Amino acid sequence: MSPTRRNLILCAALAAAARLVPAQDEAAGMKNFLTVFSQRQTVRRYKPDPVPEEALRQILDAARYGPTCMNQQPWKFLVVRDRAKIEAMKKQTLSLIEKQFESFAAQNRDLKPEELNARKERSLQFTEGYFTAPVYVVVLVDAESACAEYALRHDGPIAAAYLMLAARAFGYGTAYLTDGIPDSVTRDVLAIPPRYQRICITPVGVPDGWPRKQEKRKLEEIVAWETLEGHPPLKRLPYNP
Amino acid sequence: MSPTRRNLILCAALAAAARLVPAQDEAAGMKNFLTVFSQRQTVRRYKPDPVPEEALRQILDAARYGPTCMNQQPWKFLVVRDRAKIEAMKKQTLSLIEKQFESFAAQNRDLKPEELNARKERSLQFTEGYFTAPVYVVVLVDAESACAEYALRHDGPIAAAYLMLAARAFGYGTAYLTDGIPDSVTRDVLAIPPRYQRICITPVGVPDGWPRKQEKRKLEEIVAWETLEGHPPLKRLPYNP
Repeated sequence: MSPTRRNLILCAALAAAARLVPAQDEAAGMKNFLTVFSQRQTVRRYKPDPVPEEALRQILDAARYGPTCMNQQPWKFLVVRDRAKIEAMKKQTLSLIEKQFESFAAQNRDLKPEELNARKERSLQFTEGYFTAPVYVVVLVDAESACAEYALRHDGPIAAAYLMLAARAFGYGTAYLTDGIPDSVTRDVLAIPPRYQRICITPVGVPDGWPRKQEKRKLEEIVAWETLEGHPPLKRLPYNP
Repeated sequence: MSPTRRNLILCAALAAAARLVPAQDEAAGMKNFLTVFSQRQTVRRYKPDPVPEEALRQILDAARYGPTCMNQQPWKFLVVRDRAKIEAMKKQTLSLIEKQFESFAAQNRDLKPEELNARKERSLQFTEGYFTAPVYVVVLVDAESACAEYALRHDGPIAAAYLMLAARAFGYGTAYLTDGIPDSVTRDVLAIPPRYQRICITPVGVPDGWPRKQEKRKLEEIVAWETLEGHPPLKRLPYNP
């Protein structure tokens, strides 16, 4: 073997080894991990691209590991990909918005019709976007579990958060929707039994563009060291989605 | 320059470049990210090693990014490292357990004193372990925020989950404690104003050993595809911490 050839082989081996240095991977992993928190955003419109079943399973798998009262794991994740069901939810939700605006208009007769219409159109367009994803996950907890109150107040929202972070790690967008797609709509269209209480419903899909980042409070505003005495109360923030 | 020397330089450059290939880092990051979910466990005893302030700040920083109703970010994270405060919380909590066992004994006169004592000792030992960490974070939400109910039911628990996952990514243990360190104890010792509602308190520290993993439900038990019809209800699990 020529020295040049030997060196090239050594070179390839070193390059491969460099990729395997655990400290480097761990540091990269940590950086990526912390990035995922800040990159998870509420996505209000999606591309129709499907989410591969294997990715979906890994995302759901992550949700199983949330802390849970007395290890009861009181979760049901109802996954919906059937377009007919998604369209039925959309129809009901948009119709509810129309009704809400009728009663809003009746109570606000001083508002100009064009302003009222503009608001309604904006709300309808917003909401219509929620139904553009290929997959929906309804996060439910079991009201008959051993820690039903904890399931609703803690285990449920935390599992939803795990799921949404895992989805973001795979590059997918989500939206923690409560009023956005009302409980009554999912319960009716998806025939959810009374035993299960809904935490939220989230679309999962490729964002049709990542949204503008919302303004975040500074760390000093929300972290108090040792005491809340003299710590300023939170000011209400304007909302500009 | 000799061919050997040139090859060695090329080799070093390739090795360095291999470390920078984003796809590899991204894959490693993803794997690490998904691992963090399953590695976050309830840690009930800690080593006294301090948590560096910079790590603590990054952990708290991650908690700021949880989804939040109308972008209100209604959180206060009260960080406690003052040993005197931690000991005061411990004293009150252990004294509450003593009282609980007195009333439990009065209601269960058929239980043998040695069994009762064994149970009490176990409970005291467990609880004493909660106070071995160098840092505590009380996760609070503002009852006067624009979405107070959402803050309590969604924004609060999710921010706590973000914080605990970020802590795990740094190698620290946590425990989402509610009854474990009662609300009344933190409110009294830490003088928490009525405006703030507590979600949980978590120790943050180096685990005195990672606990045995709790048994997890299989994915099929908690995931329903398209419908809950015919999907078996969850069976209650035995609890063996």
